Amino acid sequence: MKIVIIGGVAAGAKAAAKSKRMLPDSSVDIYTQDTHVSYSTCGLPYYIEGVFEDYKKLIVRPKSEFEKSGVNVYLESRVTKINPDEKKISVFNLKTNEKYEVEYDKLVIATGAKPVTKGFENILNKKNVFTLRTLEDGVAIREKMRNVQNITLIGGGYINIELMEAFVKNGKNVTLLERSPFIMPILDEDISVLVQTYITENSNGQVKILTEDSVAEFLGEEEITGIITKKGVGFDTQMVVLSVGVRPVVDIAQEAGIELGVTGAIKVNSRMETSIKDIYACGDCAEKVHIISNTPVWIPLGSTANKEGRTAAMNLCGEHKDFEGVLGSSVTRYLGLNISKCGLTEKEARKLGFDTVSTIVTKKDKAGYMPEVENITLKLIADMRSHRILGAQAIGCGDADKKIDSISVGLANNMEVKDLLDVDLTYAPPFSASVDILHSAARIIQSKLRN
Amino acid sequence: MKIVIIGGVAAGAKAAAKSKRMLPDSSVDIYTQDTHVSYSTCGLPYYIEGVFEDYKKLIVRPKSEFEKSGVNVYLESRVTKINPDEKKISVFNLKTNEKYEVEYDKLVIATGAKPVTKGFENILNKKNVFTLRTLEDGVAIREKMRNVQNITLIGGGYINIELMEAFVKNGKNVTLLERSPFIMPILDEDISVLVQTYITENSNGQVKILTEDSVAEFLGEEEITGIITKKGVGFDTQMVVLSVGVRPVVDIAQEAGIELGVTGAIKVNSRMETSIKDIYACGDCAEKVHIISNTPVWIPLGSTANKEGRTAAMNLCGEHKDFEGVLGSSVTRYLGLNISKCGLTEKEARKLGFDTVSTIVTKKDKAGYMPEVENITLKLIADMRSHRILGAQAIGCGDADKKIDSISVGLANNMEVKDLLDVDLTYAPPFSASVDILHSAARIIQSKLRN
Repeated sequence: MKIVIIGGVAAGAKAAAKSKRMLPDSSVDIYTQDTHVSYSTCGLPYYIEGVFEDYKKLIVRPKSEFEKSGVNVYLESRVTKINPDEKKISVFNLKTNEKYEVEYDKLVIATGAKPVTKGFENILNKKNVFTLRTLEDGVAIREKMRNVQNITLIGGGYINIELMEAFVKNGKNVTLLERSPFIMPILDEDISVLVQTYITENSNGQVKILTEDSVAEFLGEEEITGIITKKGVGFDTQMVVLSVGVRPVVDIAQEAGIELGVTGAIKVNSRMETSIKDIYACGDCAEKVHIISNTPVWIPLGSTANKEGRTAAMNLCGEHKDFEGVLGSSVTRYLGLNISKCGLTEKEARKLGFDTVSTIVTKKDKAGYMPEVENITLKLIADMRSHRILGAQAIGCGDADKKIDSISVGLANNMEVKDLLDVDLTYAPPFSASVDILHSAARIIQSKLRN
Repeated sequence: MKIVIIGGVAAGAKAAAKSKRMLPDSSVDIYTQDTHVSYSTCGLPYYIEGVFEDYKKLIVRPKSEFEKSGVNVYLESRVTKINPDEKKISVFNLKTNEKYEVEYDKLVIATGAKPVTKGFENILNKKNVFTLRTLEDGVAIREKMRNVQNITLIGGGYINIELMEAFVKNGKNVTLLERSPFIMPILDEDISVLVQTYITENSNGQVKILTEDSVAEFLGEEEITGIITKKGVGFDTQMVVLSVGVRPVVDIAQEAGIELGVTGAIKVNSRMETSIKDIYACGDCAEKVHIISNTPVWIPLGSTANKEGRTAAMNLCGEHKDFEGVLGSSVTRYLGLNISKCGLTEKEARKLGFDTVSTIVTKKDKAGYMPEVENITLKLIADMRSHRILGAQAIGCGDADKKIDSISVGLANNMEVKDLLDVDLTYAPPFSASVDILHSAARIIQSKLRN
């Protein structure tokens, strides 16, 4: 059996390793246009910050290790076409300009996602404009950052929040431009406002956030030297990072006649099968099902990519395995503020027709007399009709991620508000409060459900 | 309505506060033999350590605040008898030696638990022998500890492990005697061994643990000055803390004809009602139902006491509220090692007739390249027949408590192994690993279930 995998960052690398382990006699080949295989994209902001010096630490499994296990890795090899009828792909070697075809029995598409650049085409070739996706992007951003003082971040999503932390810790001044009224659009606005306030108040005057504004004009020739916004704010800048969203890389799949979903990502079933036999898709290029709404969503995350890669491998190797979907669980931090969420936001839930009830509670995360105590603010959202918990968002210098992981497991198990009221959570003064914030929030929601 | 509450530490204090809030016009009285009301027993080891100086920080709600809200608190007032026929209790004032009777409409028994002292009766009056239960015990232990160097802990449960941390951090030498072959009997032996190894290797030579041994002879007159064990080990000591278990305080309940459960604690239903009308019991004196085994258990914990106190109050005030039971979730730490568990241990599960399957996994709790990364060792236990997860234990310098809380929520929602395989947990390098230890453990169990 000849297994061919397109893409090798998270889903592709996982699919390859798992396939080879399950079917040691099969041939497993990874084709990627990237210069590296199997690395942690999520770790790039911490490499840029200087948390560690060697970017190779981000490599989960180097090419040499894949090859030792019998998986061939073709770097800088772009797959230009999929021919499902003949079960072949066309490969273009970026180094030698060589073109050739490769046959497959089973094909895995793990082409990932790429930054949205629409509207910014004319600045992409400037020497101080960056997007962050690959290891090489990370290396380039880190090098440039070290030689500049004033940096502009365009887009207020979690990549730029993480980069902001990296830049501020390196003593840089940062201006963030966000077109909408709120940063962090994966959060509800009432929580997003708290994040923005924290950032503004805790960044030593190094950060300026401009919301409801965008670039009117970029100044400078070879490099961007200044920006004038639509509201008329003007400022000098020595570096620009563009993170205004990502989109799935689906061109070759689409050209091959593989069906896309409503989200624009590749449509797959729970076994990661696409609309064409023997072709699987997984990771950031594939559409997912949201477990709470049971609707198609596109939430590209490394943790999901990993599971989907494994699921694709198991199914193509003949073992039935379903991937049930995602909850949109995620976490990030900004200078000590942990920001975490799972499930639907209230605005998402309302858009989907849920009759939501929610509460926001702020509480200490540990016994008040312990020195390690910090606050958490938790928003809990439930459905008025079914009493099912729909989602939660938690921020704070305390263990926000711990609370959200607990709720994530509950969401995956159809937890209702009543199931959270008295749930037996671990308690000891250095770890938690005897009345946990989950209990407090559930009690408030419960009383609202009664009215 | 006249609501009388016996005991005022956790369950009693909560029941009083909640009752008064629900029925502001009722009279609510707390009778306690203690010198303080509403305090955190669980925080005593940290007060003893010197994490904070003022023991009053442990007081959740002082007497004055109760009285301001209209709840009367009678300190040093021992209830000697309950007379259910006349709906009266007899009170003995420990300061004035006065005896009197008090009528009630609704009675809440929250008499708590006390240290087992059987077999040690003849040393209890020695000036350097202590048990730890009340605030006064904590103050006395802290004061004595500061003036001695060599301390003996009898019993290897979590109270003594927490005291050991306090003493070691204060530069003391500690000998711990445990009668059974393993310390921390709430853990399975394979995990308990790891805890013991950690303690021995990370205590700067200040700790000696003697298992399968007990005291043959105490030396000294007014104070204990030395111990000779049954195995013939002899050592000097300047202080002894006895923590060989606790038992529920049920004497006045039993004398009043209130039914006890198989565990020896007061039998209650899910509304905290005892066998006698208008009498409720909650907290450490009450029996609980284990949610996994659906059997009566006695697991006295502050977090449970709080919920039971609240449940008792709601029901006696006329609002129907069920407390479904406990999972035995708990956590403690020893010098950086976090020790946490929920559900049944494997030995408990087997004793109950479950056909268990389990695995032990050790894994990094965060991305390997982050400086805050630490290890966790997780034991996951499932039932071969139903595939239901029965319990888990996690130890390590990493976020063991976070993992156990996630599983606790799953246990409360009847989680099966398959529900944990791909559960969408939050991932970012400073918080977690992209393949979480929960996923790894579930996958191993899943493969064992297949065979």
